[in-house]
Amino acid sequence: MQHNLHDTISLLARTPAALNSLLRDLPETWTVRNEGEKTWSAFDIVGHLIHGERTDWMPRTKMILQFGETKSFEPFDRWGQERESKGRSLAQLLDDFARLRSENLSELRALNLRPQDLERRGTHPSLGAVTLSQLLATWAAHDLTHLHQISRVMAHQYREAVGPWTKFLGVLRCSGHSS
Amino acid sequence: MQHNLHDTISLLARTPAALNSLLRDLPETWTVRNEGEKTWSAFDIVGHLIHGERTDWMPRTKMILQFGETKSFEPFDRWGQERESKGRSLAQLLDDFARLRSENLSELRALNLRPQDLERRGTHPSLGAVTLSQLLATWAAHDLTHLHQISRVMAHQYREAVGPWTKFLGVLRCSGHSS
Repeated sequence: MQHNLHDTISLLARTPAALNSLLRDLPETWTVRNEGEKTWSAFDIVGHLIHGERTDWMPRTKMILQFGETKSFEPFDRWGQERESKGRSLAQLLDDFARLRSENLSELRALNLRPQDLERRGTHPSLGAVTLSQLLATWAAHDLTHLHQISRVMAHQYREAVGPWTKFLGVLRCSGHSS
Repeated sequence: MQHNLHDTISLLARTPAALNSLLRDLPETWTVRNEGEKTWSAFDIVGHLIHGERTDWMPRTKMILQFGETKSFEPFDRWGQERESKGRSLAQLLDDFARLRSENLSELRALNLRPQDLERRGTHPSLGAVTLSQLLATWAAHDLTHLHQISRVMAHQYREAVGPWTKFLGVLRCSGHSS
């Protein structure tokens, strides 16, 4: 299926409000517990999304447009949210995420990307050649992979509480699939 | 972990707004496509959640309180959303879900359930003896299993568009785990 930039932006624009509606003022049972050692809570995941807004998506977009394949992206720090989240409440993180996403989408729209721009290539430090189209589609799919993760981490907190219904709840059999 | 009714209601109260923020007016690329034959789109899943509000959670709660283990629940129709969704737009389904959930939570709160009520038992047609506590915890976890599913179904639409990033996106390796 062809990547459609309008569809991508439509989704990217909605994620902060969706997470805000789900998580703001929710009891900490749901928001600060994780799935065990070295795993993330919903709070951690919002911090990770913020880190992506700051260091990943738009900086890489601009690198492709400016340098093409000649300069490799900075590697993304998968634990960078520890800095983003330090001393902040979940409500503050949700506000930060909404503001940064909105600023980034304004900047993206202002680029007025044409179809031929979307075919421009950059160099990913481990994946090699990638297109701007793939980068922007991944930005949207990355929101979804973390919405998928948040719902799984939250459901994990009720693993015992649901009793025999566990067999009907697919989310409780999901192990995350992350590499 | 102990089931906490306040935590359960807090989550149940937020799901309609979260789905509304995510899905309302989103392009149909994301909302009406599914994962292939006999699978569900986001539109279908909202219909399924509505069907649960009408026929599953509160009717079963009342059956436990009224009949205990003496009368088995009506089996839940996993394809009942076809009736709920017929001729309705996604915006209408989101409105229906919000209204029904709000009415059901008002009714649940009005029951003023005490800890000993939560230990009352009912009979599930295939799982056998279950407690009211397990039923209510499952109501919340069921929201999460479908949020998990919606994010997966939506991400599936960008499976090709993300190109080589597919290996970093756990959601694209999730097969659903449903029985």
